[in-house]
Amino acid sequence: MSQARIGLVGLGVMGANLSLNIAENGFPVAVFNRAGSVTDAFVASAGALSARIVPAKTYEALIASLAKPRAVIIMVKAGGAVDAVIDALTPLMEPGDMIIDAGNADFHDTRRREAALREKRLNFIGMGVSGGEEGARHGPSIMIGGNPESYAVIRDIIEAIAAKHEGAPCAAHFGPDGAGHFVKTVHNGIEYADMQMIAEVYGLLRDGAGRRPAEIGALFADWNKGPLKSYLVEISGRVLGTPDPQTGKPIVDVIVDMAGQKGTGRWTVIEALRLGQSPSTIEAAVAARSWSSEKATREEGAALFDDLASDPLLIPSDRELEQALLAAKIIAYDQGFKILSAASGEYEWNLDLASAAEVWREGCIIRSALLDDMAAAIREGLPQGQLIFAPRFAGLIREGARALRHTVSYAASAGLPVPAFANALAYFDTMRQSRGTADLIQAQRDFFGAHGFARIDGGADRHGPWAGAVAHS
Amino acid sequence: MSQARIGLVGLGVMGANLSLNIAENGFPVAVFNRAGSVTDAFVASAGALSARIVPAKTYEALIASLAKPRAVIIMVKAGGAVDAVIDALTPLMEPGDMIIDAGNADFHDTRRREAALREKRLNFIGMGVSGGEEGARHGPSIMIGGNPESYAVIRDIIEAIAAKHEGAPCAAHFGPDGAGHFVKTVHNGIEYADMQMIAEVYGLLRDGAGRRPAEIGALFADWNKGPLKSYLVEISGRVLGTPDPQTGKPIVDVIVDMAGQKGTGRWTVIEALRLGQSPSTIEAAVAARSWSSEKATREEGAALFDDLASDPLLIPSDRELEQALLAAKIIAYDQGFKILSAASGEYEWNLDLASAAEVWREGCIIRSALLDDMAAAIREGLPQGQLIFAPRFAGLIREGARALRHTVSYAASAGLPVPAFANALAYFDTMRQSRGTADLIQAQRDFFGAHGFARIDGGADRHGPWAGAVAHS
Repeated sequence: MSQARIGLVGLGVMGANLSLNIAENGFPVAVFNRAGSVTDAFVASAGALSARIVPAKTYEALIASLAKPRAVIIMVKAGGAVDAVIDALTPLMEPGDMIIDAGNADFHDTRRREAALREKRLNFIGMGVSGGEEGARHGPSIMIGGNPESYAVIRDIIEAIAAKHEGAPCAAHFGPDGAGHFVKTVHNGIEYADMQMIAEVYGLLRDGAGRRPAEIGALFADWNKGPLKSYLVEISGRVLGTPDPQTGKPIVDVIVDMAGQKGTGRWTVIEALRLGQSPSTIEAAVAARSWSSEKATREEGAALFDDLASDPLLIPSDRELEQALLAAKIIAYDQGFKILSAASGEYEWNLDLASAAEVWREGCIIRSALLDDMAAAIREGLPQGQLIFAPRFAGLIREGARALRHTVSYAASAGLPVPAFANALAYFDTMRQSRGTADLIQAQRDFFGAHGFARIDGGADRHGPWAGAVAHS
Repeated sequence: MSQARIGLVGLGVMGANLSLNIAENGFPVAVFNRAGSVTDAFVASAGALSARIVPAKTYEALIASLAKPRAVIIMVKAGGAVDAVIDALTPLMEPGDMIIDAGNADFHDTRRREAALREKRLNFIGMGVSGGEEGARHGPSIMIGGNPESYAVIRDIIEAIAAKHEGAPCAAHFGPDGAGHFVKTVHNGIEYADMQMIAEVYGLLRDGAGRRPAEIGALFADWNKGPLKSYLVEISGRVLGTPDPQTGKPIVDVIVDMAGQKGTGRWTVIEALRLGQSPSTIEAAVAARSWSSEKATREEGAALFDDLASDPLLIPSDRELEQALLAAKIIAYDQGFKILSAASGEYEWNLDLASAAEVWREGCIIRSALLDDMAAAIREGLPQGQLIFAPRFAGLIREGARALRHTVSYAASAGLPVPAFANALAYFDTMRQSRGTADLIQAQRDFFGAHGFARIDGGADRHGPWAGAVAHS
């Protein structure tokens, strides 16, 4: 066999599937796993594809099997394990070789690693991969950050293994160092908001309208034929229609209502806050997962306050809920794109937001029919950087605003929590308020802290006349 | 003059006022400022108090003028300036001496500095000081972190200069290293939420009910006689009743509605998120300030979407708004105390939450009649760590829940943003929901990522029966 085009370290499910994907697309791939028996088992199970898989039992053998410039994908657990593999590989590499971290790295780590390898004249690429196990095997969405010349060397492989949207690969280079991993992080943040909003509709229908899971699932399946068409709405419909094999009950009725999180939603919010952004719909989703884990607290709260709903308003119609979900979802994406935009400015990435929308069209968890329109709207230019102001989305928001209001009003009256919907609406109403209420906040701050304020007439007196009035009580 | 009990570096307004406060309470204080002319001017303006003020023109002179063990307060801009002063002082100090950082430090910096000085057998105290200029002069709220033996040396000074609540000093030692600065940070986060909620009520009355600022101010002044009695409600009432001397208009009407922030609210949220907490009311307040600065965006949004309110529901009565504000405020404090509790666990501070409520009763910006009750409730033990479950607060929440619902419903229908109120309600409704909607989120996560789920019957099958169903679209 000729030398392999690319190497891969870490044959867990994701790494194994990515290797098979590479081999299936015609590229010889050299693979290494810390436990050599895993490597053997992997090759044995690869069937015909094993002809394009080169097993390596040492890092030296891995490096020796690669064509130059060498490129090695690392697919191990994010954190120290990545650094350990990098430390093992770099002494064996030559200037111009590259390491590609395909794990869920913190983009700050990616920036640090890129800088460290650059010192050694090696290239480091941070590669966000979304789509789970199936995506890795048959076509994920791929977000690249790093030296563009290095990416050019492996671009044919990456584009071949990526998901396709009408033939266009869902893979793109977003900028230097951590840009790709950052785009992946924001993808996950949006995923949190998307999932939470769907769950809120489920809650309103279950607890407000008394619908059974299968009925709600059928409604989602119906919505999946319209503008809400998306992987998450589709699988929500399927999940809600699925019975538990053990009991025959709807499976959601036997699942404990405590959501796990691996932390990428939380990361997104923390990084957004550092950038001066407040993606309130994502914050709400992170919060909802966090509070769901406080089961004992919620049970005690129910015992104390179970009767504290008001007489509910009329519940929104199914059509209204569909419109509200669409509007709220667009608002969540608006907030997500604003994070990307802020990061691009801060880190001088010159990020192409439209390209992010494009690589998310297929392969990843948030793939949806809307993303193609979002990419187009971004290419046309977003007024004030706001997706919700773009004509094609402003129209949908306009159609859905009344339904979103009704949904939030209803939920508040009925005692059903809809934090993501409520935050979407509060953001929307803030962004259409030419005069807000921060004048009072500025006056308070000046009163107690002499922070000063700007006058609407541009006048020079930038403190209030409460000098004598400032009194310590 | 005998040697000074304590030194102070940095004669800005806060440092100068703190020095005068110390001198007025009978303690000789040595002062140093980088620009010696500032020191001279300060002493010259100190009147009779100058007899207890020792001006020092060099760090050496400052140190020489202090009784042992020496204690020096640093009151300079947070960040590198603090490190620079520490670097100048430490070579002049002896084991057992202490440096007290009274600025708004990031508690991580305080932890780092404390560890570094401990290596040199010097003590470092992080001292959060709240109350602004007036508080520094006449009695701030003081939050201490550091070695308790060191604090014992200066405790008489700190308690003398602190605000008093019925004779008890609003100063406390909270734990080692960064504990005091952390409590101060959370104080500021709560302050953000408190201010935002007041601003939201102002917005509903101004834009919903068409009230004039002076009318709204009068209402706040009235509320300040009841359970909402607090510094922030008081000054809001006064600010709203204040005319602009230049135009005669209400002063809030000439202030640009863009709020500044120095970052402590954002810090609070970031640290809370790192601790697994989601203080959604504080997040909303940080968001509202951040969005207020996007003035051009809001003006364009108004032009696009000005007509998108619905027919509003009936506006809440003044009494309802008062109850809603009280309930929402209690919920914000609940979230604030949960952050303190989480940090105490994470950093092993053994924080006394009741003590935090107690030192906030006077001197600081969030001082209010409620805090005495909160301290008592915490001392009695919070069920599940929830302030809103404590009997005396559960009762207030019960009284106010319907009003809070009405307020959020009304605002949603009227198109007026109330992000902090909406988040308070969503949190409350989440915490009284024994079964939430995270079962669907767990099912979704298992569907696309094989994350697994717990069964309510404890059964062993922790994956859904969608193995064959998992399909990459």
